[in-house]
Amino acid sequence: MENFVFCSPTNFIFGRGTENQVGKLCKENGATRVLIVYGGGSVVRSGLLDRVRTALTDENMPFGELGGVKPNPEDDLVRIGIEMVHAENFDFILPVGGGSTIDTAKAIAAGALYDGDFWDFYTGKATVQKALPVGVVLTIPAAGSEGSGNTVITNIATKQKISLRCPEHLRPQFSILNPELTFTLPAYQTASGICDMMVHIFERYFTNTTETGITDRIAEGVLLSIMEEAPKVIANPSDYDARANIMWAGMLAHNGICGTGRVEDWASHFMEHELSSLYGVTHGAGLAVVFPAWLTVVSRINPHRAKQLALRVLHVSAEGKTDEEIIAEGIARLRQFWHSLGLPITLKELGIENPDIDALVRNLHITKGEPIGNYVKLDRSLTKEIYEEAR
Amino acid sequence: MENFVFCSPTNFIFGRGTENQVGKLCKENGATRVLIVYGGGSVVRSGLLDRVRTALTDENMPFGELGGVKPNPEDDLVRIGIEMVHAENFDFILPVGGGSTIDTAKAIAAGALYDGDFWDFYTGKATVQKALPVGVVLTIPAAGSEGSGNTVITNIATKQKISLRCPEHLRPQFSILNPELTFTLPAYQTASGICDMMVHIFERYFTNTTETGITDRIAEGVLLSIMEEAPKVIANPSDYDARANIMWAGMLAHNGICGTGRVEDWASHFMEHELSSLYGVTHGAGLAVVFPAWLTVVSRINPHRAKQLALRVLHVSAEGKTDEEIIAEGIARLRQFWHSLGLPITLKELGIENPDIDALVRNLHITKGEPIGNYVKLDRSLTKEIYEEAR
Repeated sequence: MENFVFCSPTNFIFGRGTENQVGKLCKENGATRVLIVYGGGSVVRSGLLDRVRTALTDENMPFGELGGVKPNPEDDLVRIGIEMVHAENFDFILPVGGGSTIDTAKAIAAGALYDGDFWDFYTGKATVQKALPVGVVLTIPAAGSEGSGNTVITNIATKQKISLRCPEHLRPQFSILNPELTFTLPAYQTASGICDMMVHIFERYFTNTTETGITDRIAEGVLLSIMEEAPKVIANPSDYDARANIMWAGMLAHNGICGTGRVEDWASHFMEHELSSLYGVTHGAGLAVVFPAWLTVVSRINPHRAKQLALRVLHVSAEGKTDEEIIAEGIARLRQFWHSLGLPITLKELGIENPDIDALVRNLHITKGEPIGNYVKLDRSLTKEIYEEAR
Repeated sequence: MENFVFCSPTNFIFGRGTENQVGKLCKENGATRVLIVYGGGSVVRSGLLDRVRTALTDENMPFGELGGVKPNPEDDLVRIGIEMVHAENFDFILPVGGGSTIDTAKAIAAGALYDGDFWDFYTGKATVQKALPVGVVLTIPAAGSEGSGNTVITNIATKQKISLRCPEHLRPQFSILNPELTFTLPAYQTASGICDMMVHIFERYFTNTTETGITDRIAEGVLLSIMEEAPKVIANPSDYDARANIMWAGMLAHNGICGTGRVEDWASHFMEHELSSLYGVTHGAGLAVVFPAWLTVVSRINPHRAKQLALRVLHVSAEGKTDEEIIAEGIARLRQFWHSLGLPITLKELGIENPDIDALVRNLHITKGEPIGNYVKLDRSLTKEIYEEAR
């Protein structure tokens, strides 16, 4: 086991009706002027935005609003948010939405207290030294941004989708998780979120660090639970308990508890980010295509973790099978599971008939260098092989 | 699933040599005068106390020392610590030790800022409104106090051992967990700690709240890992990785993550506290006796969780067996496992040949009222039956 630091200080308020506490929570966390950040029409149509406004008004909390966050959130809106903070002296950022909205809010929170352009943080030109506090009302269990110190933003001009990690300053002060708010999520978005959270665990599970059994068992436990609950939420979108289990699992998948004491991988995420940049696909759906392809290729080189996953999580029986057969069955079962949720498992099913694999590989290594990943260090020939496997 | 709030803000610094960061961490957390609290000779003999002193001195941090914490820590030493804080203006409490030392430090931290007697918090006469910050150097994985907001103190005059829960004010600011510091723990103490952490999970696992699958899977994962690593640390006390897995598991067992969304039980802990009060036994060893007896009795009334535990954690095969047989085999396996670690599983083995069961039952219900527990609500006849079962 490697030395590690783990700190997940976010206050999680979980359950029915909890969004009505948002005004009180902002006040307790020192807010005096709140900037609400949200995406499209669903938080308006559902009445959630109104309830948030009411909760703030009930506490006499002044607030402004910034709507229009898109999936794969873009740099332009972050800059608008930063200008709003400067113009109107907001001191607390309140995203109401999913990962894209939260990530935008975090970028605004850090950028507002920085003299240069916020994109410097994402390119590595500057590091976050301070940020405004952020509180979350979550509506999409997927990205885990409600419990993480991470944010991913796409730069439209440079076509780069880059993640930034700064747990010290970007973990939310509080996150309100009401499973009822997820009842109206379309099936495809629900399934994509489920895939995203599973791959957040896989990125930590595929490691060469030995003797981290406790972290394995927790990761496997969260995966088992997600796979048990996922078919229920697809079959019955208003199943409160299934939605609740999935919502909490999404946080646990990405707050770091599934990765303590080990070197993590993250190659699949980097490879998917290039897909999202070039083709604008839904992140979780892109992962359903990329991850099994990644696993197929790396398992030929480094099989041991894929075997354990197959046996402990994917219910493959070892009896009478070679390691190769166990792993192949595990990957097939994983693909089958995601397919059963309505997700694509090939680039073709994702709507990309003729992928420009050379461009994907080129962009990937321009952004992330070479090699990428840790479980198997991927050079250009291997990343090309993975994108080919994903066709 | 029930609504819940979960906040575990402690900063965990885990790994080899991490105790040398303690001066820097105290400073970062606002300390200007530190009171070190410790127990007996082992932290002196091992040189740990000297390393802590050096780390504080290196940061020019003034400090005082209060040694002499005993297992089942007592109220008298808390009062001495509170007087020291008042006399010497300490503003940070630094326990170096296990649960007893940390619990004493938390009691001092809360009592020092209270006008009345600190014991009021434990009897429920007052609630903790504020406390000095606490940082931890952990040497015994067991109580989980390094990540919890709990403290248990024994009042010598009244012969009461009472736990206090106040996550808002009593969670440590930081906890330093170096598995190397546990190499010299005697086998019996190691095993008792392992039992304590397992029962911390069981107290949360035995619930009538339905549909909390994610919490089940995490709890089962931590239990599986503890049972995999425990024989290794008993066989080889200097096995760093096994010690590391056990140390992290002990924190996870009690920071609340294994109980989210459900009503918890805690009857076994209450019943063991009476044993400790009357006979001065080691808490974890007492639990190895009380818990299987509790499980035997309550499973006759409410069997469903014992069956799941037997199948998922204790490796009982269901084939050809009735539920009663599955549960009985599960309980037998648990007793066998604890026995294999060198723990007692009967009151007799614990050295109590002629337990005064009437006194235990009487004290229990005087302290905790009636009924106690939630999974099965225990009246005096049932608690008597459990103590009898434990003989």
